[in-house]
Amino acid sequence: MEDTDDDVPLILTWDDANSGLLSEETERGDENGGGGYDIVNNQVIPTPGPPPNYRSHNASLQQSWEMNYQEAAIYLQEGENNDKFFTHPRNPKALAAYLFAHNHLFYMMELLTGLLLMVLSLCEAPAVPSLRLDVYVHATLELLALVMVAFELCMKLRWLGFHTFIRHKRTMVKTCVLLLQFVEAIVVLIRQTSHLRVTRALRPIFLVDCRYCGAVRRNLRQIFQSLPPFIDILLLLLFFMVIFAILGFCLFSPNTSDPYFNTLENSIVSLFVLVTTANFPDVMMPAYSRNRWSCVFFIVYLSIELYFIMNLLLAVVFDTFNGVEKMKFKSLLLHKRSAIDHAFQLLVSRQRPMGVSLKQFDGLMRFYRPRMSSRDRFLTYKALNTAGAPMLSLDDFYKFYEVIGLKWKARRSGEHWFDDLPHTTFLIFKGINLLVKSKAFQYTMYVVVAVNGVWILVETYMLNSGFSWSRMVPWSYIVFLTIYGVEVLLKITGLGPLAYFSSGWNLFDFSVTVFAFLGLIALAFDMEPFYFIVVLRPLQLLRLFKIKQRYRNVLDTMFELFPRMASLGLTLIIFYYSFAIVGMEFFADVVYPNCCNTSTVADSYRQINVTIGNRTVLDEGYYYLNNFNNILSSFVTLFELTVVNNWYITMEGVTSMTTHWSRLYFMTFYIVTMVVMTIIVAFILDAFVFRMNYSRKNKEPLLDPEDENGIVFEAEVSRDEALATLELYKKTCPGLSSLNSLQGVLLAMDRSGSSSLVYLGRRSRTKSDLSMKMYEEEIQEWYAEYSRENLPQSDRSLVERELDIPPPCHEHES
Amino acid sequence: MEDTDDDVPLILTWDDANSGLLSEETERGDENGGGGYDIVNNQVIPTPGPPPNYRSHNASLQQSWEMNYQEAAIYLQEGENNDKFFTHPRNPKALAAYLFAHNHLFYMMELLTGLLLMVLSLCEAPAVPSLRLDVYVHATLELLALVMVAFELCMKLRWLGFHTFIRHKRTMVKTCVLLLQFVEAIVVLIRQTSHLRVTRALRPIFLVDCRYCGAVRRNLRQIFQSLPPFIDILLLLLFFMVIFAILGFCLFSPNTSDPYFNTLENSIVSLFVLVTTANFPDVMMPAYSRNRWSCVFFIVYLSIELYFIMNLLLAVVFDTFNGVEKMKFKSLLLHKRSAIDHAFQLLVSRQRPMGVSLKQFDGLMRFYRPRMSSRDRFLTYKALNTAGAPMLSLDDFYKFYEVIGLKWKARRSGEHWFDDLPHTTFLIFKGINLLVKSKAFQYTMYVVVAVNGVWILVETYMLNSGFSWSRMVPWSYIVFLTIYGVEVLLKITGLGPLAYFSSGWNLFDFSVTVFAFLGLIALAFDMEPFYFIVVLRPLQLLRLFKIKQRYRNVLDTMFELFPRMASLGLTLIIFYYSFAIVGMEFFADVVYPNCCNTSTVADSYRQINVTIGNRTVLDEGYYYLNNFNNILSSFVTLFELTVVNNWYITMEGVTSMTTHWSRLYFMTFYIVTMVVMTIIVAFILDAFVFRMNYSRKNKEPLLDPEDENGIVFEAEVSRDEALATLELYKKTCPGLSSLNSLQGVLLAMDRSGSSSLVYLGRRSRTKSDLSMKMYEEEIQEWYAEYSRENLPQSDRSLVERELDIPPPCHEHES
Repeated sequence: MEDTDDDVPLILTWDDANSGLLSEETERGDENGGGGYDIVNNQVIPTPGPPPNYRSHNASLQQSWEMNYQEAAIYLQEGENNDKFFTHPRNPKALAAYLFAHNHLFYMMELLTGLLLMVLSLCEAPAVPSLRLDVYVHATLELLALVMVAFELCMKLRWLGFHTFIRHKRTMVKTCVLLLQFVEAIVVLIRQTSHLRVTRALRPIFLVDCRYCGAVRRNLRQIFQSLPPFIDILLLLLFFMVIFAILGFCLFSPNTSDPYFNTLENSIVSLFVLVTTANFPDVMMPAYSRNRWSCVFFIVYLSIELYFIMNLLLAVVFDTFNGVEKMKFKSLLLHKRSAIDHAFQLLVSRQRPMGVSLKQFDGLMRFYRPRMSSRDRFLTYKALNTAGAPMLSLDDFYKFYEVIGLKWKARRSGEHWFDDLPHTTFLIFKGINLLVKSKAFQYTMYVVVAVNGVWILVETYMLNSGFSWSRMVPWSYIVFLTIYGVEVLLKITGLGPLAYFSSGWNLFDFSVTVFAFLGLIALAFDMEPFYFIVVLRPLQLLRLFKIKQRYRNVLDTMFELFPRMASLGLTLIIFYYSFAIVGMEFFADVVYPNCCNTSTVADSYRQINVTIGNRTVLDEGYYYLNNFNNILSSFVTLFELTVVNNWYITMEGVTSMTTHWSRLYFMTFYIVTMVVMTIIVAFILDAFVFRMNYSRKNKEPLLDPEDENGIVFEAEVSRDEALATLELYKKTCPGLSSLNSLQGVLLAMDRSGSSSLVYLGRRSRTKSDLSMKMYEEEIQEWYAEYSRENLPQSDRSLVERELDIPPPCHEHES
Repeated sequence: MEDTDDDVPLILTWDDANSGLLSEETERGDENGGGGYDIVNNQVIPTPGPPPNYRSHNASLQQSWEMNYQEAAIYLQEGENNDKFFTHPRNPKALAAYLFAHNHLFYMMELLTGLLLMVLSLCEAPAVPSLRLDVYVHATLELLALVMVAFELCMKLRWLGFHTFIRHKRTMVKTCVLLLQFVEAIVVLIRQTSHLRVTRALRPIFLVDCRYCGAVRRNLRQIFQSLPPFIDILLLLLFFMVIFAILGFCLFSPNTSDPYFNTLENSIVSLFVLVTTANFPDVMMPAYSRNRWSCVFFIVYLSIELYFIMNLLLAVVFDTFNGVEKMKFKSLLLHKRSAIDHAFQLLVSRQRPMGVSLKQFDGLMRFYRPRMSSRDRFLTYKALNTAGAPMLSLDDFYKFYEVIGLKWKARRSGEHWFDDLPHTTFLIFKGINLLVKSKAFQYTMYVVVAVNGVWILVETYMLNSGFSWSRMVPWSYIVFLTIYGVEVLLKITGLGPLAYFSSGWNLFDFSVTVFAFLGLIALAFDMEPFYFIVVLRPLQLLRLFKIKQRYRNVLDTMFELFPRMASLGLTLIIFYYSFAIVGMEFFADVVYPNCCNTSTVADSYRQINVTIGNRTVLDEGYYYLNNFNNILSSFVTLFELTVVNNWYITMEGVTSMTTHWSRLYFMTFYIVTMVVMTIIVAFILDAFVFRMNYSRKNKEPLLDPEDENGIVFEAEVSRDEALATLELYKKTCPGLSSLNSLQGVLLAMDRSGSSSLVYLGRRSRTKSDLSMKMYEEEIQEWYAEYSRENLPQSDRSLVERELDIPPPCHEHES
């Protein structure tokens, strides 16, 4: 380690003494469109001589370095979170606010405030009966939450500065909504009664703006990006709809028994519903019974609208989605690269501007990942430093985000967890291990599961309805459960708990078995509400799908897609929320049993006693249950509208009790969910096609179950290195506790007697890793383009002359 | 032209005297897996000395050449039609049969027989009332058609030879079905009554086997190729369905008012229907009204099955489809190349084995395109011969299929059709031309169309229902029609009829306007059945979509997709036919008004008089109209089942009147249409994504309306060439009539006074052209691979040593 104590940072930051330099730099940064510090400029044209306020004594130097570490860590964090650099804190005051606003406590507060505001609608005016709160209670709660939001916004204002704050669109919208809500909440509190508060539909904005809801924000952005082509095709759809409505009206309105086409408005509504197929044969029937050839009209209409244009919608969205996904990946990648560039410049010293030493790297990591142990910090450095050079070059440093998530573990000399046990025990466990790993055992278990499946099916088939759960513990249940229990125990002992639980499939087996046991216990102790667990038994059958490669792929991809699917689901719920609020404000308590008698869908709302033979039965049209009486009911109703079938019954019911403008609400909702659903379909399509292309391109099975390691890095640590590092760490941060882990490495070396130890860092493979491999060639182009664009103006002509673009740092070496 | 009369063909074919050589070659061909003649072998290892029966006198030589021309033409035809070479005729007897079976008359006969057999079901037992025929009439017709089919099969047997015939799967299936139908038809004729003839569902086989139904066959193949992955995912779907059915039965069967889950069978059926969403909120309602949390079951089920697995189905089919499309293109391309190889070998002479002279090419074309004029034959040769060499090399000849469809036209010196008119007239027409082409004129027309659209909308909105057509000729109709008429006339005169009608959009305008005129005449003369034409007026509005580029693209792509869509539709209809026959055999006359009173869907079939106030109204459940009483009704019913909404009402109605096994029919139909529909969606997706990728890759707008030329080839003909060719043609085929066109060229040269004329050959761009450009690089790889595989065994080692693969003919030059 040739690191000396009087290295001077190349760039000084946030040092109070440097305020002159700083302000100058800030201005320059603003000029360049928010690039923060114009580092490359600094570096290519080095300032002659030391900066004005350069102080040479060590303590102050140490402080400067600490400042630099912190800013570098912030840059890297911004790169990771995809925060734009123009929101980068510019001075120590902003830094304090930035630090305050960027930790998990603050994020949690944001999230909870957002959730609280949304959850309030459970208790407000058309409330869920059991959760109803008085007006002054929920209005006070709301005010409280709004004050919290205001406080958060103040912190943001302090961190961003007024200028940046008002340029940041999302924040400005949030501020406006906040003010509106404030006024409304106060009005409610004063009047002690709720007025028509449609603006509550805007509440999700507070949730969406949370740090933790980044995925939802990205989804929303993607939806908005797909909108323009979508709207174009939608217009085409509506256009054909109007043409056919005119035709339909002309053709079918002479038939007085046809209620679907008797006015132009009805005609349009009928055809709108027909695009969703929800009224299909019915809408045709009156015309069809009059003249059999009228079916041609409907067949042509459906062929054009449903089978052609609707698929076109999907095609257009899919295509846009495809492009957007790639662009998103590109911009994220380049943003990260730019963040690394910024951080690198802050970490190099004036003496050696080409590399980052361990000391500086460690300083950075103490800010970037405060919880990381000293051993892991050192190992991460080793993993980056593939060349074994004394310093990290910029190229090494570019891999920062790839190695940062690794979990480090010493490579074990033995294979099994029981290798260190006494011989007899070892043999027993070895036997279990071999048994558990044998094909015979696996296929026996498949057979057992299959038999169990058939058994359950037959058993259920023979059951009479109206049985009681408590008397229904068939012996087969206990037998199979015992077998599964034994299997789980054998596997855990044979493979070791760690290896066992690292496989998703095993986890699944384990939890299903445990649930089944819990169900049995519930039955034994007569805990009625938990009986449903027993019903989950058939889920064991899912294990059968491990047999075939394709199913493994599908299910694995399913699990991989799950986080993204969940965020899409959340996005949908946010739309639901807004629509639910609007629905509740306008349609609460509008439908009830036996309402809507004037509409064509009266039957579905009718509730009358019918006498069949000598028995009186309640003939129930249940549709009054699909109402907007509280937020939970609204959600269920909206889900039913999403599924589309029979949605027009709900629409017509509500319309007959209000005005016919209500239809606008339902039609808008249909179109919005259509957008979101099309995006979901496009997403699933894209993800699967990507996976399949990927595996075809790289000639590897989609996900080899044996190769579940994900990404693995290796780092070998020798005794000398470990000792030197320990010394270094002792010098730089004297707190002993953090050094334990590094001393542990030395202890482990002593125990094993070897002079070096190999550590393996693992993390699971992400979509981004796949994309990196998939777009390998394009990525190189993007990088070249990026470095060309980021060269300072003065150098660009030079580059264009030479055509061989030098890496940004070469000038310093010569 | 250095062509001499005593050129000897390199290969002699079908010459009776050559039977010894022929049979030897045939055997060799069989050895190589049906490659016909092992030409490359012949060429790389030339046979020393003249073939055994080589005759040197001219007449016989001429005859040999004619034979060769004919076989080469047959090879090229096989390449075009994608017929496998192992069905290539091997001897003069087979040739006669081949020629008999390969002309449009025979094809038409095949098609008509197939259609007749299918149409017969209109008149058979559950016949369309107005078309009912007596048993002996339709059975005799059927026998007649079957005899025709048998005759066609005999010709095929004669052409293919017994050995090949029984190896050809499709033909064998056809033969078996034919025998079966024969027996059945005779039985019907003897018993004078129809028995249960489900085998009629196999009749489409005769239609599908037609030459003209090649597209349908390809679709069917594609469907079968997509089946394996489809079935895998389908099993996953059904598996979850069964698991949830067991869960649902356990959870909801205690609720006695829930008819959907009272037995396991009902539970499975309900969930099957739920996947189609057809019974959605209803199936949930009884459980939901009992316990609000039961909606979770349905939401989870729908999320997994409908929103995940169903989309997965699409993804898997889309991916397979993508791959299959490319493979299909590849195999077609290589098949054509191989056909050209075969033909080339037959056309080269022993003296000059490297090239095809005009004489030989012309001989080929006289067989390949007997109707082509001598001028076009010559121009095609010129288009192939880009290098201007005296002979066509194999590489030139590979472009055969690209130039064969060109329509040749002399390049006009002037731009407009009226250039040759007297000056005053010219000026008038020029004025019209400029007017018609001006932006102002176009936008005025758009405004007129838009005003017309709004007018129609408002007019229709103000109409009372119950108007009469004959009294309804508003003056606006006449005004707008006049404007459109004038526009059409102006455009035709301004652009010239040819230029006008070459644009699809103009054709559309023209036909809509003509239809509107016809409607007006119909109104004027009170021809009631044609009133509906008036209703087509709003179609004019479609012209508005020309304004925006995206719509032009979409509509153009729509027109381009149309042939393929039509063939997919035909495929669907063939499935419909089979299902309709089965449905008619089992469910004819099963449902009628007021049937199905025991089922849960009785309401939809009820037809009772209801007294409302003092008026008696017929309350009609129209579902009895969705029956299988004749083939037309069956088709409509099946279309309704395809649209899926409320399909379970038809299913339950039929089931309640028959056995519950009937559900199998409906469920199978649902799954089959799901496959076909998924393929259709995948096809549309694929076509659009392909178009967009193509335009992105080639940086050209999707379809520039100005660049509707398609593929253009150019050929310049000088006077000397024309004269020489004329001489040659006069020698080879003395019939004068065919030479007129070539003399026309000379005349045109005389008139214009120039010594050469340029001709342009045009054809529209096909999907194959786009694919050629899209897969440019891969195609080179395929060709390399192909020529490597087609080198004879003995040479392969040599190739592998040299690695630089020489084109097949180079050895001869050295």
